[in-house]
Amino acid sequence: MKDIFLNFAPMKFTASQIAELVSGTVEGNIDAEVFRLSKIEEGSVGSLSFLANPKYTPFLYTTNATITLVSDAFVAEKPFATTLIRVTDPYEAFTKLLHHYNKMKSNPEYGIAKTAIISEDARISKDVFVGDFSHIGAHTTLENHVSIHPNVFIGENVTIGAHSVIHTGARILDDTIIGEHCVINSNAVIGADGFGWAPNEQGAYEKVPQTGNVVLENYVDVGANTTIDRATLGSTKIGKGVKLDNLIQIGHNVEIGEHTVIAAQTGIAGSTKIGTHCQIGGQVGISGHLTIGNRVGIQAKSGILKNIKDDSKIMGYPAFDYTAFNKAYVHFRNLHTHISDLQILKKKLDHE
Amino acid sequence: MKDIFLNFAPMKFTASQIAELVSGTVEGNIDAEVFRLSKIEEGSVGSLSFLANPKYTPFLYTTNATITLVSDAFVAEKPFATTLIRVTDPYEAFTKLLHHYNKMKSNPEYGIAKTAIISEDARISKDVFVGDFSHIGAHTTLENHVSIHPNVFIGENVTIGAHSVIHTGARILDDTIIGEHCVINSNAVIGADGFGWAPNEQGAYEKVPQTGNVVLENYVDVGANTTIDRATLGSTKIGKGVKLDNLIQIGHNVEIGEHTVIAAQTGIAGSTKIGTHCQIGGQVGISGHLTIGNRVGIQAKSGILKNIKDDSKIMGYPAFDYTAFNKAYVHFRNLHTHISDLQILKKKLDHE
Amino acid sequence: MKDIFLNFAPMKFTASQIAELVSGTVEGNIDAEVFRLSKIEEGSVGSLSFLANPKYTPFLYTTNATITLVSDAFVAEKPFATTLIRVTDPYEAFTKLLHHYNKMKSNPEYGIAKTAIISEDARISKDVFVGDFSHIGAHTTLENHVSIHPNVFIGENVTIGAHSVIHTGARILDDTIIGEHCVINSNAVIGADGFGWAPNEQGAYEKVPQTGNVVLENYVDVGANTTIDRATLGSTKIGKGVKLDNLIQIGHNVEIGEHTVIAAQTGIAGSTKIGTHCQIGGQVGISGHLTIGNRVGIQAKSGILKNIKDDSKIMGYPAFDYTAFNKAYVHFRNLHTHISDLQILKKKLDHE
Repeated sequence: MKDIFLNFAPMKFTASQIAELVSGTVEGNIDAEVFRLSKIEEGSVGSLSFLANPKYTPFLYTTNATITLVSDAFVAEKPFATTLIRVTDPYEAFTKLLHHYNKMKSNPEYGIAKTAIISEDARISKDVFVGDFSHIGAHTTLENHVSIHPNVFIGENVTIGAHSVIHTGARILDDTIIGEHCVINSNAVIGADGFGWAPNEQGAYEKVPQTGNVVLENYVDVGANTTIDRATLGSTKIGKGVKLDNLIQIGHNVEIGEHTVIAAQTGIAGSTKIGTHCQIGGQVGISGHLTIGNRVGIQAKSGILKNIKDDSKIMGYPAFDYTAFNKAYVHFRNLHTHISDLQILKKKLDHE
Repeated sequence: MKDIFLNFAPMKFTASQIAELVSGTVEGNIDAEVFRLSKIEEGSVGSLSFLANPKYTPFLYTTNATITLVSDAFVAEKPFATTLIRVTDPYEAFTKLLHHYNKMKSNPEYGIAKTAIISEDARISKDVFVGDFSHIGAHTTLENHVSIHPNVFIGENVTIGAHSVIHTGARILDDTIIGEHCVINSNAVIGADGFGWAPNEQGAYEKVPQTGNVVLENYVDVGANTTIDRATLGSTKIGKGVKLDNLIQIGHNVEIGEHTVIAAQTGIAGSTKIGTHCQIGGQVGISGHLTIGNRVGIQAKSGILKNIKDDSKIMGYPAFDYTAFNKAYVHFRNLHTHISDLQILKKKLDHE
Repeated sequence: MKDIFLNFAPMKFTASQIAELVSGTVEGNIDAEVFRLSKIEEGSVGSLSFLANPKYTPFLYTTNATITLVSDAFVAEKPFATTLIRVTDPYEAFTKLLHHYNKMKSNPEYGIAKTAIISEDARISKDVFVGDFSHIGAHTTLENHVSIHPNVFIGENVTIGAHSVIHTGARILDDTIIGEHCVINSNAVIGADGFGWAPNEQGAYEKVPQTGNVVLENYVDVGANTTIDRATLGSTKIGKGVKLDNLIQIGHNVEIGEHTVIAAQTGIAGSTKIGTHCQIGGQVGISGHLTIGNRVGIQAKSGILKNIKDDSKIMGYPAFDYTAFNKAYVHFRNLHTHISDLQILKKKLDHE
């Protein structure tokens, strides 16, 4: 198999260019070239690495990284091959380079692919990208600097705010409103009909019409293969700055407050309202028609069947106070011993 | 951000038109126009709302809804701005309008998009819609009034029954049979190979060929990003009227009885048979090779490791009787107190 | 609805052809034709079935299967209609036919569809298939005998090893490296950004750039709608022979050892390392930054919050030893009785 870091190949930097970017000083070959980033212990020819945690110092003497960012205070105790760039804070400098790299990489191209299908009734702002085989429906608006990757479907009467990115394979169905600076990852589905069924007298289910839509405020991220259903009536609302991981299910008429983050594979049933600044773990399930307060922490895999107050930290199925759950669970683990004790006591008393 | 209800914009109705539809009488401006539906507490100019629950009466005096459906018996106690339409049952009238709206909206168009790829060996009935960039394989049959949205893949030797709808991004793989009036939501995958692996002597896994197919009877709904695997041999069978929510996994050779509903993110392992009229919550896991009876209720997040009898209501991991689980769980929550009591008793008796 | 086994229609075999393939002898019509495989209890005209388990012998006298494989030792006790093919081991013979059938079916075609978009900078080996509406990005390499089904997106700087198959709707994002003989099922997403967010002083989340990639070694299978995130730095690594079922989430920088199998809807959080030859059930959740040993067995639905040693078998949420969990759970089920006993004892002692 090929070198796994070929990814950074198209961009090359010299030690002196990097030193300038991070306000550092080169110690070694100022013309040394790097075209990828790596951990110091995985450094290879052409990679740029960093030494921040003293625990990793031994790797500096053996790394194959071409350039390594080190602290101004670093004093070598053995010979080494890598070119050093000395900076005040190597981790901060490395993070700065990461952002710089990412910005260059995501520098968007504009234009409409020849194979894209754009409705005559769509409003496409300038400086928009629409990739191959993507479809933009009637009465839909793409604002400035929107990027629609290939093989995307955008339905009718959709609005996508400025600087938002829709990744390949995502499906944005009719009437959805997406704010600015949002990112919708691959194969996510936004605006499919909610799961509304009413049993008839024969026990068969008849569809409750789902006439609402989905609204994402600004700076929302939606993970790959995540699904957000349209409201039965009104809107399913995802607040500003909410971050949703992969494979999450958001039911119809759910509302999520600003700056709440939710980890992968969590599901939220219809009409539940979640507060702001919550941290919800992976594989959590939350029943319908509940109210979850602000700043609530929910441990991964918990199941929530009741309203939860502000600032709670909960766990379990059904979930209750995090500390109380863990106390109870310690006893559960030892339940066999406890019950044996109980049975001995019982016998003792029965024999008295 | 724009008004979130623009969704209904293309259709406009006057108060007198609506009164006719719901057999009501207008009180106010008979020419008042609405082009969306709303809850009374979220009413805005151009929206039609309703007042059914007396609890919401105060909103009538403040709502910005242009028209509001109210009961014949309603007596106003304050001034208000909205035009009234009086009907016998406002909720029923509103539901009627919802269905009317939905019917207008889903009125299918017919025709084959120029960019669609249709095998010469496919049999396409009349009055069928196939959207852009969709692919219909050889020996596949689309019956009357089938609607295939854009970016859909339909493999070889597939049958799709009359009036069924395949939403954008769904993948219907070879040999699948879909009945009439089915709905397959976006990015669902039907007929991928089941997860069948046999370890060899070196501990590596060799594939067990998956030569069966998937059969959906009439009136089946499949949620967005749900996956239904083909059978190893024979068919994975989804009975008439079954409703599957989003992100569900149905393993190879599973059989689901008529009119069973399953909520999001539930998984059913290979060869399990589920009865009719079951109600299965979200994030439930059911092991392979089990038999679940008819009319079984399974609480969300439960894990099923044994066969379940007809009419059971179960919960837990592993799941058992719903009432018994909840009784046990109350004690679990207080386990710390109980074990403290036990330890006190133990000490008492040891000291006697 | 049509016969559900039409799937095998395009290929027909006679009894004498099959007898030759499995080294058997025909008893009945040597020209009998079959074009599908079936279970004996579901046999129908045109199907080939087998009788291996004596429990199913009664079906032989009633089956509508045209041909049935039976053991050399089989002695009929009643009349029957099916043509027999006698073999040493009917199950083995049937399995052989399955593999033969599958091989014929999957015999790949080669060529590039006219509607496929291939970057000028991509390196496409000979004998490669690329289907309609698929997109191959710049600097991407497809090695010999690679098969890219329709509506697939392959980003930039990707490598796909020889004999690998990418099914319809899969998304292989920039920098991903896929080994040889891998299978990526429909709508899987490989290489989306990991879920990395750092809260700022205002409690809003800022993105941690995700600059790494995903590496799949040889013989890896990825299920439908499964997501594997790219590393923050370095690579998310899936070892040789790993088999992932549908709807699984693999977080950034996760590493999975060779020949580990994972069932559907399991999630593994960022930076966790999993050993070789593990068997992980469905809907399992594993926290981030953990180390799971080799040959570990994890029962479905378990939640793992700690490192796990080699050869452990665990269950529960949080998970611990499998046998200990089950012992404790027996007592949990009867907790109501135990606590009643405890309360009786308490009263007795209080009254003494």
